[in-house]
Amino acid sequence: MAAGIEIPKDVPDWSRYLGDGVAANPYGVPSAFEKDVIRRTVDWLTPTKESSVSFAPLHKMHGIITPNGVHFERHHGGVPDIDPGEHVLLLHGLVDRPLKFSMADLMRFPAINRIHFVECSANTGMEWRAAQLNGVQYSHGMISSAEWTGVKLSTLLREAGVRDNAKWLLIEGADAAALSRSLPLEKAIDDCIVAYAQNGEMLRPEQGYPVRLIIPGWEGSINVKWLRRIEVGDKPWHQREETSKYTDLMPSGKARRFSWEMDAKSVITSPCPENPLPEKGFHMISGLAWSGAGKIKRVDVSIDGGRNWQPASLDGLVLSQSLTRFSLPWQWDGRSALLQSRAMDETGYVQPTIKQLRARRGNWSVYHNNAIQTWHLKKDGISENVQLG
Amino acid sequence: MAAGIEIPKDVPDWSRYLGDGVAANPYGVPSAFEKDVIRRTVDWLTPTKESSVSFAPLHKMHGIITPNGVHFERHHGGVPDIDPGEHVLLLHGLVDRPLKFSMADLMRFPAINRIHFVECSANTGMEWRAAQLNGVQYSHGMISSAEWTGVKLSTLLREAGVRDNAKWLLIEGADAAALSRSLPLEKAIDDCIVAYAQNGEMLRPEQGYPVRLIIPGWEGSINVKWLRRIEVGDKPWHQREETSKYTDLMPSGKARRFSWEMDAKSVITSPCPENPLPEKGFHMISGLAWSGAGKIKRVDVSIDGGRNWQPASLDGLVLSQSLTRFSLPWQWDGRSALLQSRAMDETGYVQPTIKQLRARRGNWSVYHNNAIQTWHLKKDGISENVQLG
Repeated sequence: MAAGIEIPKDVPDWSRYLGDGVAANPYGVPSAFEKDVIRRTVDWLTPTKESSVSFAPLHKMHGIITPNGVHFERHHGGVPDIDPGEHVLLLHGLVDRPLKFSMADLMRFPAINRIHFVECSANTGMEWRAAQLNGVQYSHGMISSAEWTGVKLSTLLREAGVRDNAKWLLIEGADAAALSRSLPLEKAIDDCIVAYAQNGEMLRPEQGYPVRLIIPGWEGSINVKWLRRIEVGDKPWHQREETSKYTDLMPSGKARRFSWEMDAKSVITSPCPENPLPEKGFHMISGLAWSGAGKIKRVDVSIDGGRNWQPASLDGLVLSQSLTRFSLPWQWDGRSALLQSRAMDETGYVQPTIKQLRARRGNWSVYHNNAIQTWHLKKDGISENVQLG
Repeated sequence: MAAGIEIPKDVPDWSRYLGDGVAANPYGVPSAFEKDVIRRTVDWLTPTKESSVSFAPLHKMHGIITPNGVHFERHHGGVPDIDPGEHVLLLHGLVDRPLKFSMADLMRFPAINRIHFVECSANTGMEWRAAQLNGVQYSHGMISSAEWTGVKLSTLLREAGVRDNAKWLLIEGADAAALSRSLPLEKAIDDCIVAYAQNGEMLRPEQGYPVRLIIPGWEGSINVKWLRRIEVGDKPWHQREETSKYTDLMPSGKARRFSWEMDAKSVITSPCPENPLPEKGFHMISGLAWSGAGKIKRVDVSIDGGRNWQPASLDGLVLSQSLTRFSLPWQWDGRSALLQSRAMDETGYVQPTIKQLRARRGNWSVYHNNAIQTWHLKKDGISENVQLG
């Protein structure tokens, strides 16, 4: 900022003429100056656009709400174009009364509202190999957060009357992939939401319109979108997305399965490769932290690659299984630095280094990489994605 | 919902073919089935589109976040098209160091994130005369809510060094109306935010892009948008929007001035004129409550025009100076009913009837109508806006 100012003699042109009137945009859009704040894809990452992913622009986001327009998306058979007036949710299997719900039926139940993140378990997955994707949008952009509104899954199960021998649910989407997963009854009853709205409006098509599951704190793919069927059973179904995919090949050669909960994780979103520092001096180091196990308790920041740590402040709401903002004021002396953040959640779990994570899980994993991220800030203010040995 | 279902023999078409792939919408939009969820205007309400208002579709909203696309708007000279790279905020007057802030300067300070409502003090204003606007979008749609991100106004004032004799600020917008208001220094230092983001992304143009004030709990027009100038002084400026407008003509013939704080208020958003009840039986009565004085403590609901009251449940986050969701389960017997909600805030203030409000303020007011709203639900399930004597 500049001191000793003079009041300018004239005002800018935008103050001299009438601007756009109301109803120019009955459903508004961002300023044209923000046209680069969009979801982005990585061409080589997936075989087709219909079985692909787009990443949220974390480096341009503020607070803990992800704007619906840039919520990351991942789908296995494209985004179906579902008529909510025709859509039906089936609930059957080990229940006293099999039920069929229209959208009007679902929206007639008591509603709950919860802010939760959804993170694809493949988020940061490329980084298992090495530091590969030079930007926080690509390395960490498969996470987003919203205020979700819907009916408790437990309410629907109570309507149907779950039998005593029931232990698992099969949950299935209406997309062309018919994406389906096995969900333990205990979690279903605990906190799951049959959600029809995000951030105050009906779900966006790519988020499961007209209805999806929100499974708080659990990997994205089990938060089944375009929900069409719930079957109650007594054992898991062993579907494709819980056998050949979304499992973790361990050093022993065996696969870790049903690894649903997203462990505590954090990332610095400024500075980062997309947000260089323009000059020496005062800057805020800021970022996002989250945990599938509960609330974030503490975030530490290091500028020397993890030798020394300083506690960051948590800015704004700290909610369970939700994004949490952290920041640390910093006087940058213009020298090279290795910037890291480390999250701790209310269970006492501490985000590991990639070395610690490899020691536990080996080198064959694709999913559940929650390692500490390192940005190598160079003298010119540019950061690079690096991995410390 | 239907019981005793059979599993359909086939799946719908949308499950049979691949849907849209990623990046079809790098900045996404709502489903085409939601095309009626938009801001709306009332032609006769304002002389021009550039000095007008559009209303948020409260009857279609969920939770406490207003989607940025339908946040209500009110402007006095249209929406200026401001280049954030050129925009400058001046801070001068009774300060040790007059300062000039670019957007980059502002975004370099520590950021705070707060969920707050903004309500135009003319919201529900037409209802001072009689029940006029038959729909909650029109009667109450000049309120919206967002997670706002910005720098504390107190931080900027500290940078400039406010002199001992300072008591008021002049805050001025860069729109063609140069909308300006006097703000007491005490409130400025207490909790005001120089905000550049809403719900995770930069402000929408009609919400003040690139920077505005958020004055928690105070009438909308003092939350100056397109903020370009802050002058520190020792007395109020008596601008147009705090003398001829945004004042309340009392029964004595004198005007109440500087009536900034929005009193506790609530409204049932379902059922309402836009949301008829399709049939007898179980329904949720649900709505929104808020107070400029703090948190909502309690909301009561009446189905007989205020003779008897039942406490509603508060659903989701209950935050200070923020929208709060309430609901009450109800068995509708198909008879005519007079639906009302009544908010109480943490100060003990109780939302008045229109009769009580008129007894205090007379009949000449335009602003600050926070009276209990009545929907007359008829036997056919249709509600009408009525006013009880």
